[in-house]
Amino acid sequence: MDYMDRELHEECGVFGIIGHQDASQICYYGLHSLQHRGQEAAGICCENNGKMIFHKGEGLVTEVFNQDKLKELQGSSAIGHVRYSTAGGGGIANVQPFVFRTMQGSMSICHNGNLVNANILKQELEEQGSIFSSTSDTEVLGHLIKRQSGHMIDRICTSLDKLDGAFAFLIMVDNRIYAARDKYGLRPLSIGILPNGAYVFASETCALDVVGAKFVRDVEPGEIVRVKDGKLLSKIYTKDPLQDKICAMEYIYFSRPDSNLDGINVHTTRKLAGKQLYYENPIDADVVIGVPDSSISAAIGYSEASGIPYEMGLVKNKYVGRTFIQPTQEMREQGVRMKLSAVSAIVSGKKVVMIDDSIVRGTTSKRIVRHLKDAGATEVHVRIASPAIKFPCFYGVDTSTIEELISNKMNVEELCKYIEADSLAFISEEGLKKSIHFSKEHTCGLCMSCFNGNYVTNLYDSFDKANKFEK
Amino acid sequence: MDYMDRELHEECGVFGIIGHQDASQICYYGLHSLQHRGQEAAGICCENNGKMIFHKGEGLVTEVFNQDKLKELQGSSAIGHVRYSTAGGGGIANVQPFVFRTMQGSMSICHNGNLVNANILKQELEEQGSIFSSTSDTEVLGHLIKRQSGHMIDRICTSLDKLDGAFAFLIMVDNRIYAARDKYGLRPLSIGILPNGAYVFASETCALDVVGAKFVRDVEPGEIVRVKDGKLLSKIYTKDPLQDKICAMEYIYFSRPDSNLDGINVHTTRKLAGKQLYYENPIDADVVIGVPDSSISAAIGYSEASGIPYEMGLVKNKYVGRTFIQPTQEMREQGVRMKLSAVSAIVSGKKVVMIDDSIVRGTTSKRIVRHLKDAGATEVHVRIASPAIKFPCFYGVDTSTIEELISNKMNVEELCKYIEADSLAFISEEGLKKSIHFSKEHTCGLCMSCFNGNYVTNLYDSFDKANKFEK
Amino acid sequence: MDYMDRELHEECGVFGIIGHQDASQICYYGLHSLQHRGQEAAGICCENNGKMIFHKGEGLVTEVFNQDKLKELQGSSAIGHVRYSTAGGGGIANVQPFVFRTMQGSMSICHNGNLVNANILKQELEEQGSIFSSTSDTEVLGHLIKRQSGHMIDRICTSLDKLDGAFAFLIMVDNRIYAARDKYGLRPLSIGILPNGAYVFASETCALDVVGAKFVRDVEPGEIVRVKDGKLLSKIYTKDPLQDKICAMEYIYFSRPDSNLDGINVHTTRKLAGKQLYYENPIDADVVIGVPDSSISAAIGYSEASGIPYEMGLVKNKYVGRTFIQPTQEMREQGVRMKLSAVSAIVSGKKVVMIDDSIVRGTTSKRIVRHLKDAGATEVHVRIASPAIKFPCFYGVDTSTIEELISNKMNVEELCKYIEADSLAFISEEGLKKSIHFSKEHTCGLCMSCFNGNYVTNLYDSFDKANKFEK
Amino acid sequence: MDYMDRELHEECGVFGIIGHQDASQICYYGLHSLQHRGQEAAGICCENNGKMIFHKGEGLVTEVFNQDKLKELQGSSAIGHVRYSTAGGGGIANVQPFVFRTMQGSMSICHNGNLVNANILKQELEEQGSIFSSTSDTEVLGHLIKRQSGHMIDRICTSLDKLDGAFAFLIMVDNRIYAARDKYGLRPLSIGILPNGAYVFASETCALDVVGAKFVRDVEPGEIVRVKDGKLLSKIYTKDPLQDKICAMEYIYFSRPDSNLDGINVHTTRKLAGKQLYYENPIDADVVIGVPDSSISAAIGYSEASGIPYEMGLVKNKYVGRTFIQPTQEMREQGVRMKLSAVSAIVSGKKVVMIDDSIVRGTTSKRIVRHLKDAGATEVHVRIASPAIKFPCFYGVDTSTIEELISNKMNVEELCKYIEADSLAFISEEGLKKSIHFSKEHTCGLCMSCFNGNYVTNLYDSFDKANKFEK
Repeated sequence: MDYMDRELHEECGVFGIIGHQDASQICYYGLHSLQHRGQEAAGICCENNGKMIFHKGEGLVTEVFNQDKLKELQGSSAIGHVRYSTAGGGGIANVQPFVFRTMQGSMSICHNGNLVNANILKQELEEQGSIFSSTSDTEVLGHLIKRQSGHMIDRICTSLDKLDGAFAFLIMVDNRIYAARDKYGLRPLSIGILPNGAYVFASETCALDVVGAKFVRDVEPGEIVRVKDGKLLSKIYTKDPLQDKICAMEYIYFSRPDSNLDGINVHTTRKLAGKQLYYENPIDADVVIGVPDSSISAAIGYSEASGIPYEMGLVKNKYVGRTFIQPTQEMREQGVRMKLSAVSAIVSGKKVVMIDDSIVRGTTSKRIVRHLKDAGATEVHVRIASPAIKFPCFYGVDTSTIEELISNKMNVEELCKYIEADSLAFISEEGLKKSIHFSKEHTCGLCMSCFNGNYVTNLYDSFDKANKFEK
Repeated sequence: MDYMDRELHEECGVFGIIGHQDASQICYYGLHSLQHRGQEAAGICCENNGKMIFHKGEGLVTEVFNQDKLKELQGSSAIGHVRYSTAGGGGIANVQPFVFRTMQGSMSICHNGNLVNANILKQELEEQGSIFSSTSDTEVLGHLIKRQSGHMIDRICTSLDKLDGAFAFLIMVDNRIYAARDKYGLRPLSIGILPNGAYVFASETCALDVVGAKFVRDVEPGEIVRVKDGKLLSKIYTKDPLQDKICAMEYIYFSRPDSNLDGINVHTTRKLAGKQLYYENPIDADVVIGVPDSSISAAIGYSEASGIPYEMGLVKNKYVGRTFIQPTQEMREQGVRMKLSAVSAIVSGKKVVMIDDSIVRGTTSKRIVRHLKDAGATEVHVRIASPAIKFPCFYGVDTSTIEELISNKMNVEELCKYIEADSLAFISEEGLKKSIHFSKEHTCGLCMSCFNGNYVTNLYDSFDKANKFEK
Repeated sequence: MDYMDRELHEECGVFGIIGHQDASQICYYGLHSLQHRGQEAAGICCENNGKMIFHKGEGLVTEVFNQDKLKELQGSSAIGHVRYSTAGGGGIANVQPFVFRTMQGSMSICHNGNLVNANILKQELEEQGSIFSSTSDTEVLGHLIKRQSGHMIDRICTSLDKLDGAFAFLIMVDNRIYAARDKYGLRPLSIGILPNGAYVFASETCALDVVGAKFVRDVEPGEIVRVKDGKLLSKIYTKDPLQDKICAMEYIYFSRPDSNLDGINVHTTRKLAGKQLYYENPIDADVVIGVPDSSISAAIGYSEASGIPYEMGLVKNKYVGRTFIQPTQEMREQGVRMKLSAVSAIVSGKKVVMIDDSIVRGTTSKRIVRHLKDAGATEVHVRIASPAIKFPCFYGVDTSTIEELISNKMNVEELCKYIEADSLAFISEEGLKKSIHFSKEHTCGLCMSCFNGNYVTNLYDSFDKANKFEK
Repeated sequence: MDYMDRELHEECGVFGIIGHQDASQICYYGLHSLQHRGQEAAGICCENNGKMIFHKGEGLVTEVFNQDKLKELQGSSAIGHVRYSTAGGGGIANVQPFVFRTMQGSMSICHNGNLVNANILKQELEEQGSIFSSTSDTEVLGHLIKRQSGHMIDRICTSLDKLDGAFAFLIMVDNRIYAARDKYGLRPLSIGILPNGAYVFASETCALDVVGAKFVRDVEPGEIVRVKDGKLLSKIYTKDPLQDKICAMEYIYFSRPDSNLDGINVHTTRKLAGKQLYYENPIDADVVIGVPDSSISAAIGYSEASGIPYEMGLVKNKYVGRTFIQPTQEMREQGVRMKLSAVSAIVSGKKVVMIDDSIVRGTTSKRIVRHLKDAGATEVHVRIASPAIKFPCFYGVDTSTIEELISNKMNVEELCKYIEADSLAFISEEGLKKSIHFSKEHTCGLCMSCFNGNYVTNLYDSFDKANKFEK
């Protein structure tokens, strides 16, 4: 599905660099390649002799920054952030990086993920006199660090250990960057190195490739890494058991096909899922088509496994951006269709297998099936490269409320009828695991809570926040 | 290849509508779906009780128009234009639609293509006292029509018959739109109809689909069509022999994959060309990859014919737009690569077949081959889905000068060496024809002058304008 | 009255320079100082080795141009234009400079004023095959010049002699600039010279001062001046009798106080008019106040003559620009007053003499009187530094239609009642003449047609165009 | 002197309203009329059922807000801020209003002034675990309030009493607004009421007039006022002695001429200062001129007292805004003068008295004197309507460092020579007091520390921050 039209939203992407005179510029290119992880806001903070200089705003990376703004960000280390949602009423106040000022120096923080015990921690902090500038859970970490004593790394470790939930953090203090990942490994975070020895951190490896960095390794679950004076120091910040539960939707949906997550290529995973989808749910048809962009790999996999030719039966208009004037309801009723065109010359008179990566509310699927039939498809068989999403995510993905998750309300037959498809099938959880783990030694490391409700953390008050949730 | 990074440029796309109260809005959506035909400027003119109201500017359709501008364009008929080049020094003066004012009323004109006898006609007109506001050859038609007498359709026909070269014209006068195509059919122009009976004209059928119009038929070579009071009148405006010589590059490169040109689907053509490319130039390899976006169909065709799996070995960053800050030379040398990423996980250690749609100057191909090898490809075999481009185009495509066309200076072996590929092959002219004509009764109707120098028109002074050209 | 809130509008200002490597930049500063003559659109055209390069757009000079746009305009001569009205439906097409292209070279034209025989000339030109790109009367001159033969200066002279009405023209061809003024001298045009010998032309001398040019002399009525190779050549282009009828409102209202028109300073004229106004219409009061900005000089004159202290009883908000969000009707009714604040501390309990430069429709005067009374003024005596405007202008001033001119419908007593003033008086025609001519040898040279209907030209069809006019 | 070219800068203006459904819109108009107090940034926060919704950004009020942004700010109370300086490296983080979030609710704060003990308070707060998001001293108040207990008004009072320095605060919590002024009354703050009963607060009374509010009274030194449910409650928050030391420069320079400060009109004060200036420093001359805009009132006063006519010898270009392209050094050397034009027709051959409101670094005065002489003035006598500024301000005015204050380094004779004037005189402190206090009962209430170094507060570490200061 197109990034601009997604029904699921990743909350963020982070990028950091230390040891390069053009740190902010490289950060700009890194964030730009992570743009698919968040299109609502962006920010970069750089450090220059202890001073934190930052710029952030609402919009795409290319909208928030221009030459002049970038030139102001002089310094040899920088961290940056792209963000999906500015929800919460905070607007610009919630855009990261956050900068915290103290008499001893400043600190800047970026966060991808979601903390499940943020409210509990906030309450404790407030009782001690803390006050918050944003509605973001990320701000909690700054306050915790401030209240610890000792060496900075110890203060950070103690603080991280109090957090529960999903996170990849970049923390910049003076001439150091710290990078940490939650103990479940829910959100990805990779380390790279530039030819000049500068270390680079990114949510996805595609950002390393784009800036010309060599992949070093992933930050491990429960690990904090510090770079100072060109040297990398590693530490486990918790005594809790470490797990390996990276979010399955990172593979199937969020990440760029050229990224590798925990060593496994995303496109390859998707293509294998497409093949597996065929093995589990074969169908006899004339053409296989994918919903652009994120379902193309799976569609080609399905085509290869089945021998049914892959065709470009749906075409996306790539120029639909923020300034696009949306057609009115009246226009849409008259047939104006901006984002996806069903190609009549390809689907007319044909049995079509339509591959998509997921179904959230069902409305998009229903609309596409109708487009294909209007364009002359005689049958439309929908195959979904992820299991049915039945539970909300509390780890940084903006699924709808549980009530809006259509698979929570309908079984496959009902849903098939609802979206007016001729058949509908989802890949099995086992099948998805197999697609992802084909080359991985360990075979249990995925968070699949949105499919099966087996949350990897305690949920604290998150149940109540999500409000209408009943398991 | 990506539309933003193209080495060949289509000059224009046109869209028109008559008989709908929201004419300008529909025109906006139509132009938007033709954006790939020209990203430098856009304009819409609508007619309201004899008054021509227009807005035009430099940039994408979404940049030139906003809600307020669109609302000012009230009227039941409209014509619009997207333009690649504002070259010629004229800037905004050359942006279409052109509007001509006379005491008897106004006239508006849009043009896709290039006239080869424009200078001769301009000289004649100037000798009679005419004066020009732009450097565009399109303005000539307005002056010619003004100097004829009789009924408007006769004045237009007489004028069109004086023109030589490539054109699809939309002419709006009072409550009428005229649509005409050159006698060789070099540039495409299709007719559609909306549910309410409004007629629609567009350079490509994808625009008909997007606005919800049903395809009626193409305008034929040498034909002029007039719509007035909801009725369509057709006429052949010339006694010259009519030909059927649509530009081959429209299929292989310019048009959107979901468009049908003279009844043939573009994606299908490209996929067949990919298959044909394999039959003519087979190679044993591990993966087939395509250069996004326009070579993907051919790459899948090559994969299906060869049985070599298609993989996403090159990924394009879709957010590279006009406000993107280009990396400096220094950045690029350090390895920053913004537009295309070669996916190491897919190509490393592999023999790769890389499919592209054309080679113009050779620099892009050379760069991509190097990216693939840097990413670990052991061999890169380049296959091109069009014959070698050896001659400049005078019909509205901005090829480089003949000196820059690398296939004019190197044979295939030399070029292969230059781009550092392990092998290189182009589809044959015959092969390309076969791919395009598979379902067409007539088999000779393509302009292939950029491949073989057999220009379909007299070239007048165009040789000299192109300056360094020696056949 | 404030330039942004004016009820009378000058149509244009022109600026030209030849013989300076930064011609466009100097033109930018010159236009900027003429901004009060037209805020709707601006343009600059420069000449570079025979090529005309231009940029123009809607908005203030500072909105239309930025560094990048200005840098593109390389060349050693340039002409520019600011324009009030883009009325006529032409939009951007009517923004000047106009550029005309011919095989022999290009020509660029700027015009301040209005032609009264434009329609007659247009009809003749159309009968000979001409076609127009704009609805502006200025385009006529380009067509006329094109159709003459012989040396360029003769072609221009012959063409100018066919025109009737008000004009100051700048015409740029190759390495020459021509500057011409109508035979009545209705619109001003001055010549200056820079330290490096570059000649400069401007609608007002304030633009000469701003760019550091020394005033040379005014272009005379019926004169054309040509600058080529740093030499100035002068010619009278007509055998018609020459007059000296500069627009009286240029002194009283349009021009900047620091400009000299035909050798007489504008501020000085206004102050004298203020004194004269007192001599003709004395009143006993506590304070004199002026409506900012254009009536301040007259108010100070009234104060000096009367001995009544001048105070700042009305304050204008200087930040009301184009992006200002206008208060809704509801807001205004609640008392929100953005443009002018009446200062209670100054007028409360006082008899006030309020000086304004003119009354057009009367609504503004009525509103200000009410503000003053709301602020506590016990009496408001209105004194107007121009005679009552009873007739429309056909020479380039956008007065309202004759029906809207309140002095055409009401005598002074009625009008006084209408605006709710305690007394009202206008300066006499003789008094105004005296104020302007105090230092001038000739004493008859003013166009006062808007006061007395004695138009200096034949009006052709202008009566009908102005439609509701009955003398 | 022009607001855009000032050498002294007020840091801020504040506006608040409670009890009106269009609170944000009225706040917009209020801030707009306070724009002269800060042009670098602006913000509005409104309260809607306990939710704080805000928008802020860099630029003028009209640049930061548009219709859409304003519409998002729904709620019946709002506070807003215009700010001069975003210095301190904080950029957008330092733009007000600040919003603080707690579990019990949110709070929003605006501040005009400067705290002298902010660093001491910050250090104490940090020792208790507080962490800061900005470099602004304003944030301190939020933290202090958070750490108190009891009723909100008591928490605020206790917190305010800990602050030392200059402030006018607006604090919005739930359905209440609190307004407080420092115990010296250094910064102004007035209360108004709208016809519907809504209370309004503003730094200057001009903002009350503009929104149609009736002046109620000023907030008194040391007073806090709370509005809740349409009722106004007043309290003195400190046991310290209260003083009446409003900043003298508010009268002479910062405030709009139509504002009344502590009941005295600003224009009137300035005109009296102009008269006093003549009585103290008479001179025989031909014309009196003022440096626009803030010195015009004083110039007219000088003219009235002396009988020397006031003329418009300096004209300002009102269109010089943020997008204006500044002339290069080369251009300026060639004579391009954008901001102020000296009017040759008025000053040539004349003895000129030039009135300005202050001299800071002396460079602007020197430049203007030179312009006047270049324009032909035979003598230029400079008279300054404030005493010489010899000491930096620590109460919210951005004077230069002490080293840059030219009157700290030169006596009047030396300075006269430096600015190349024929004579130079400043008003005396006594004279200024007399001008301001003419109608005031108490005669000691002015802060004149920038003239005489008698600071009204302890300065703590401000001496060291200002660094080069030695008394």
